[in-house]
Amino acid sequence: MSDTAYHKLENRFRRIGLLGEAGAILHWDSAAMMPQGGAGARGEQLAELRAISHGILTGPETSDLIEAATNGGGLNAWQKANLKMIRRHWLRATAIPEDLIVRFSRACSESETRWRQARADNDFSHVLPYAETVLDLTRQTGTAKAEKLGLGLYDALLDEFDPGQRSADIDVIFDDLTAWLPGFLDDVLVHQATEEEGIKPDGPFPIETQKAVGLKFMEALGFEFDHGRLDISLHPFCGGTPDDVRITTRYDESDFASAMMGVLHETGHALYERGLPKDWRHQPVGEALGMSMHESQSLLIEMQVCRSLDFFTYAAPVLKDAFDGTGEAWSPENLHRLNSRVERGFIRVDADEVTYPAHVILRYRLERALISGDMALKDLPGEWNEGMQNLLGVTPPTDALGCLQDIHWYDGAWGYFPTYTLGAMTAAQIFAAAKRVQPQIIDGIRSGNFAPLLTWLRENIHSKGSSLPTRDLLTNVTGQPLNADIFKDHLRHRYLGQ
Amino acid sequence: MSDTAYHKLENRFRRIGLLGEAGAILHWDSAAMMPQGGAGARGEQLAELRAISHGILTGPETSDLIEAATNGGGLNAWQKANLKMIRRHWLRATAIPEDLIVRFSRACSESETRWRQARADNDFSHVLPYAETVLDLTRQTGTAKAEKLGLGLYDALLDEFDPGQRSADIDVIFDDLTAWLPGFLDDVLVHQATEEEGIKPDGPFPIETQKAVGLKFMEALGFEFDHGRLDISLHPFCGGTPDDVRITTRYDESDFASAMMGVLHETGHALYERGLPKDWRHQPVGEALGMSMHESQSLLIEMQVCRSLDFFTYAAPVLKDAFDGTGEAWSPENLHRLNSRVERGFIRVDADEVTYPAHVILRYRLERALISGDMALKDLPGEWNEGMQNLLGVTPPTDALGCLQDIHWYDGAWGYFPTYTLGAMTAAQIFAAAKRVQPQIIDGIRSGNFAPLLTWLRENIHSKGSSLPTRDLLTNVTGQPLNADIFKDHLRHRYLGQ
Repeated sequence: MSDTAYHKLENRFRRIGLLGEAGAILHWDSAAMMPQGGAGARGEQLAELRAISHGILTGPETSDLIEAATNGGGLNAWQKANLKMIRRHWLRATAIPEDLIVRFSRACSESETRWRQARADNDFSHVLPYAETVLDLTRQTGTAKAEKLGLGLYDALLDEFDPGQRSADIDVIFDDLTAWLPGFLDDVLVHQATEEEGIKPDGPFPIETQKAVGLKFMEALGFEFDHGRLDISLHPFCGGTPDDVRITTRYDESDFASAMMGVLHETGHALYERGLPKDWRHQPVGEALGMSMHESQSLLIEMQVCRSLDFFTYAAPVLKDAFDGTGEAWSPENLHRLNSRVERGFIRVDADEVTYPAHVILRYRLERALISGDMALKDLPGEWNEGMQNLLGVTPPTDALGCLQDIHWYDGAWGYFPTYTLGAMTAAQIFAAAKRVQPQIIDGIRSGNFAPLLTWLRENIHSKGSSLPTRDLLTNVTGQPLNADIFKDHLRHRYLGQ
Repeated sequence: MSDTAYHKLENRFRRIGLLGEAGAILHWDSAAMMPQGGAGARGEQLAELRAISHGILTGPETSDLIEAATNGGGLNAWQKANLKMIRRHWLRATAIPEDLIVRFSRACSESETRWRQARADNDFSHVLPYAETVLDLTRQTGTAKAEKLGLGLYDALLDEFDPGQRSADIDVIFDDLTAWLPGFLDDVLVHQATEEEGIKPDGPFPIETQKAVGLKFMEALGFEFDHGRLDISLHPFCGGTPDDVRITTRYDESDFASAMMGVLHETGHALYERGLPKDWRHQPVGEALGMSMHESQSLLIEMQVCRSLDFFTYAAPVLKDAFDGTGEAWSPENLHRLNSRVERGFIRVDADEVTYPAHVILRYRLERALISGDMALKDLPGEWNEGMQNLLGVTPPTDALGCLQDIHWYDGAWGYFPTYTLGAMTAAQIFAAAKRVQPQIIDGIRSGNFAPLLTWLRENIHSKGSSLPTRDLLTNVTGQPLNADIFKDHLRHRYLGQ
């Protein structure tokens, strides 16, 4: 049995999976532990691991084995799904000529460096030529993938981050949100003005205490410290491997909520990774689905669960006790109010749940126009500011607060942005379904018992790995494909009390 | 030029070097950061990296390239030395059949687990059959290497850890020490009894302060924190890579000296790694020499430099200040006295500089007899205790304090032990030479300026990499091969004031 073409493929992908895990730990180390002087050698180590993986993946036998395994039959459902994912990886890896991969990687690295300077100097023109090269090479790699996969150009880029996701579906959903959101935002701001402003708890909040609180919440949520860690890095992320999940945060002594919400967000990612099917470790089918499902798991924990009044009913006394707090500032209602403030702002990563989709829709529309060539990159600053005015009613005073704020495009991540809002909507839809079928979830959250929630997520989402497409999984679990109404209901309920 | 056989080899070994660096960081992570639940997957990741390196090293082209590069000529001295090291790696890697490598690795892993239990239970019989398998497979791999390398069996094992080292030379040196040491030890203990006992500083010594002091000494010694870290692990070690050297220690709140001396020891290893020739990164000739030279660099810093009265002249006020100490306990003389106590003991890792060689000589003689078959493993406990009585005048009350104390043999590291004492002697010889040619070294140590010492070590030892054999390097730098008299002079000077 183990000599069949399929099993030979499994063996190759097990090796690729192990190299990927080694790379993931080294990547975490780069961000959380490595002294700066190690960066040069680290880059070379990671490049070597990638080159070896690429060699195994694109080796001459792989295509024959895929062919033979596909024709061989005798596979069960998971093996079939695995073969499908294997084929997908192989198609994508062989779609692009090696010299294009190298040129793209160099261009991104150069452009990213220039972008940091441009953002610091608030000077878009400084990065423009480098970003144009990245965009041009993005189009070239996208076109190569699109041909091989039978997809449109933008969909080929999007599919890299979120397999199976198509812009035609996104258009419908984002058009719906665009029509609804500005009016809703007005209503929320009017409603919010009728309420008391929250009382800011007095700091400073010592980092050690913030860390202890974060660890306590992580443990309550079901994070297994025998299989993971919490550390510090400049940009919080979830990395590592399913058996050793490494999340990071950063602390601000004057504000505990930002690190806390960051930790809760990354814990959502971590629980997904940790809950992936153990029997399929190091195989493509055992990996998490695309970015919209991954982001749904972090936003389900952060936004759906941990910014709710139910959560603060449990968390407020814990926080009050940890920080020796006194008074009304530490009530569940006040902390909930502070953590569900809505504001028009310029910066995506600082945005609340209501305005966030506007930031994403702007970027989605701009990147589609830029990729298709309908818009020139030199016109980005003006188009950006106009879009912000239309969608959010504010105009960034500088490009640093506008089109230079995010690294994505300058580093070659075109087609990524929509997954944030798809994730937020998916989270709302999954959480609504979970609450419906398992009423103990809400009681549990109120009392700090997250086991009913985690058990449900493990069973229905995490343990499925990539055995079925995102759309099918969502339909199985919630009864329908992604539906913007559920997200809107959630926002209406939380921000207008409807 | 880059298409010559030699340059193709360099390219292969660059890849092997990068994979080795990736493995080194993952190994450090396993000991210093990894949660226990990550161990299984980590073992597989490391095994995959080793398998890929082994594949590159033993690939069919390698032997042709070595042949062609050797006959091709046109190489400079460093390239020739590199080719020699490349050949050595290739010979060793191809000497042993793959199935023997796998069986040996499994046997070591099983035996190591049993050893932990046997030591905890003080029951040698529990590990005996497993250790016998390891010994048998050690003989098989040693025989295979010995044939390929044209060496005797024990020398083939020793050569793995210390290239070029031969037991015939060690015999002469160890016989000399054996004849001299027991009498000298008696003299030292008599002399020591005439002196005041040192005054133990009062603890506890907070771990944070111990760490701060360790970092301060590391910095003074020239450790570059832009290229390295200090962390905690159960067994202190120096790992990582030359551009990112990671050392570890462990702390005891009741005794600051043990972590401090550990940090200084590992800093010696780290300075060697960091000082290796940058132009030869990822090539065999750019790596450190064998274990005796590596241990000489750690012991030079710890034993020769940092247990001297000169060092405590600088360090005592630093320590006193850090720990808010008062009184005579914190004088340079007292701290020096405490850190140069001599005692007959059972445990090698706790031994002082004078008794340490006796522990090593015992192990060296026993392992030679066990490897050659002159002695049966079942007789080890009795022979051990008899040897301890002859060499040190003490008999361990239990095997846990005797032949079960060290992991080495049970984990397959036969031929390693002599390098500890060869390292101590090499350290004495190098330091004597350094002081002779660069008198500022001692003044520097007294005032906390270690630059003259580090500059000399970098120039004369570290930057040489593996461009010449240990014996030649030592001769170049000190004017003679390893000479026990210099070590004896050092001990006489420090412990008898002669």
